[in-house]
Amino acid sequence: MLIYQATASAPVNIACIKYWGKRDTKLILPTNSSLSVTLDQDHLRSTTTSRADPTFKKDRLWLNGTEEEIKAGGRLATCIAELKKQRRQVEENHPNIPIISNYAVHICSHNNFPTAAGLASSASGFAALVASLAALYKLPATPSELSLIARQGSGSACRSLMGGFVAWEKGVREDGSDSLAIQIAPREHWPDLHAVIVVVSDHKKGTSSTAGMQQTVETSALLQHRINHVVPARMTAISEAIKAKDFDKFAKITMQDSNQFHAVCLDTEPPIFYMNDVSRAIIALIVEYNRVSVAATGHLKAAYTYDAGPNAVIYAPAANIPEIINLIAHYFPQNQTFSDPFKLFTNQVPGKLPFPEGFNTQVVKKAEEGAVKGLIHTRVGDGPRVLSDSESLLGTNGLPISLA
Amino acid sequence: MLIYQATASAPVNIACIKYWGKRDTKLILPTNSSLSVTLDQDHLRSTTTSRADPTFKKDRLWLNGTEEEIKAGGRLATCIAELKKQRRQVEENHPNIPIISNYAVHICSHNNFPTAAGLASSASGFAALVASLAALYKLPATPSELSLIARQGSGSACRSLMGGFVAWEKGVREDGSDSLAIQIAPREHWPDLHAVIVVVSDHKKGTSSTAGMQQTVETSALLQHRINHVVPARMTAISEAIKAKDFDKFAKITMQDSNQFHAVCLDTEPPIFYMNDVSRAIIALIVEYNRVSVAATGHLKAAYTYDAGPNAVIYAPAANIPEIINLIAHYFPQNQTFSDPFKLFTNQVPGKLPFPEGFNTQVVKKAEEGAVKGLIHTRVGDGPRVLSDSESLLGTNGLPISLA
Repeated sequence: MLIYQATASAPVNIACIKYWGKRDTKLILPTNSSLSVTLDQDHLRSTTTSRADPTFKKDRLWLNGTEEEIKAGGRLATCIAELKKQRRQVEENHPNIPIISNYAVHICSHNNFPTAAGLASSASGFAALVASLAALYKLPATPSELSLIARQGSGSACRSLMGGFVAWEKGVREDGSDSLAIQIAPREHWPDLHAVIVVVSDHKKGTSSTAGMQQTVETSALLQHRINHVVPARMTAISEAIKAKDFDKFAKITMQDSNQFHAVCLDTEPPIFYMNDVSRAIIALIVEYNRVSVAATGHLKAAYTYDAGPNAVIYAPAANIPEIINLIAHYFPQNQTFSDPFKLFTNQVPGKLPFPEGFNTQVVKKAEEGAVKGLIHTRVGDGPRVLSDSESLLGTNGLPISLA
Repeated sequence: MLIYQATASAPVNIACIKYWGKRDTKLILPTNSSLSVTLDQDHLRSTTTSRADPTFKKDRLWLNGTEEEIKAGGRLATCIAELKKQRRQVEENHPNIPIISNYAVHICSHNNFPTAAGLASSASGFAALVASLAALYKLPATPSELSLIARQGSGSACRSLMGGFVAWEKGVREDGSDSLAIQIAPREHWPDLHAVIVVVSDHKKGTSSTAGMQQTVETSALLQHRINHVVPARMTAISEAIKAKDFDKFAKITMQDSNQFHAVCLDTEPPIFYMNDVSRAIIALIVEYNRVSVAATGHLKAAYTYDAGPNAVIYAPAANIPEIINLIAHYFPQNQTFSDPFKLFTNQVPGKLPFPEGFNTQVVKKAEEGAVKGLIHTRVGDGPRVLSDSESLLGTNGLPISLA
């Protein structure tokens, strides 16, 4: 018996120019273009197996072992329907291939990072879903073409369809056909760009980004200025910085745009706060770390950015990562051991190394253990990968292996 | 022997439309107009005695018992010189009055609120200095004319030269002669407007407002839009709200402008944060308190505003103050007793009263004792008062009584 299935993994991406606001909430068309770095799926990924089978009664989906409802007209249903439609066109154009577009599908997805880490999983999740169905259906679509589908699942998912440095062009057409992701540069162009994710504890349930961004669109007096005047110039400038591997320029724009995203959240009615006192303290550390470096060498060493939550993501050239991890581990003692995937601390303990000369140690107060839950060290990565059947998340019975 | 002296007190003011940015740092000319409520100096005030005497060797000033240097060309020297100059003109026009403009002055000033409360004292302090010297010199100047001098001591001081609701018009002239305070309405127009100051603990030394506002002018991509488009409309709208005693409109604009002021601080490079997690929690309480009220009656009950620090000021009609104090005292247990100047809690304890019906008590977590240091209940107040000589802060020897 032939099994029609494919498994794919897709990466997380973290924006340098932030997406905040939709001009069309159904098609998920943004008010401004955005740009992100794709992170290495060796460390953080969503993996999805999709199978089409004539015995399946209806489309079903499991996420991290729990079945999720595929609501009619919802985002999942929209993506699945669009991919089936593209398969149908392929079948019409190639009469010799199997007709599977009319089979129901079972989809099983898993994130290798805990939800409690506070990392948005919708981008990697929808990217893996689209990549696995595209592989199952052997669609001839390019990553940019697939990004049009992923975008309708979760806006930022479109940027996880490729590796390296990825722009989501907002587009101008009403049907959204030009609102897609394009690769500015592949990971191989600037493999030295690393990232540290600082997982910050938070007691408060934040505003969801879906609800928050539309509140900002409706009430912020500053957002239109950002959309019309600030972001277009920054998109051009940061693309140039990436092409030139100019970390100073990249870092400056990345920090400016993180600040401005949180500024328009604060300018919302009622105001939205995603950063907390720990997030602010990490900014103060990075500002001081850069101040000392600029005074000594004229160059920035790190760039912080914050999404719709308290976690920091710090981009930096690989050589600076040990200093950065040491600084954060010193001020934010953790109750879990740093996993150290790049073996930076074989003979030392993060937090116990000397600080850069001239660093003002009073800039932040040392926090109690647990204010930062953990550190994840990763780097720029590649786009979705199609995996072998040995990685399948579905058993021969068409149900998740994890539930067997 | 004749003693030439006068004592005056001046009030604190808290802006609803925020002053943030100078177009001329020497003359203290702002980038945008602002508007404040003058608070009652029965509760919070600066008191200043000024004396002119032929035996004094040089101008001297004591603030809260400590002598401060009057730097040549500095803000204090500028204000004193301008007032002496105006006295000289009076002397030239009225040959029969005593010539005292050439005497050195001793100035003694005292704030009745502790510096640790984190309330800016420069506004009330410079207003009291200008008012006391103007009384000493018997200047025929109007409060608006005196506000031109106080402005050069500390920008927001110009708004403490009158009571009630006061606009500081930014002006357009290069010499600053039209950048002055005007009264929108006296306290008697809307005496029902009360205020609660929530004094929030802070470990972090914040950016001074003088330095911070110019960093924003130099680096924020959003500030110009605020200055040119947002503030002018809000100045008109809030003046109308005050004239109509429309608390809903007043509250909405006040909260919007507090949010936007902190938003442009965040949009600064490096970002400036004045609010901390406790400030944010107080916002969440007021937002929920208003939500419940709007659902029940269609009306807002309170408006928060934050200056360049973590303290909240909550404006509300007098009738709502017990509920507001109860809410804050419940979530932020204090280690000092509420002084209760209006005798609201004669039979109850703040923090132990029932909440408004429908209030979501989970919106904020109860803080540990001391996160809020204290509450000050006050209301809209009058402008500077000239006091009798029995209130003098200077002894017969011309030195502060407090040092005797």
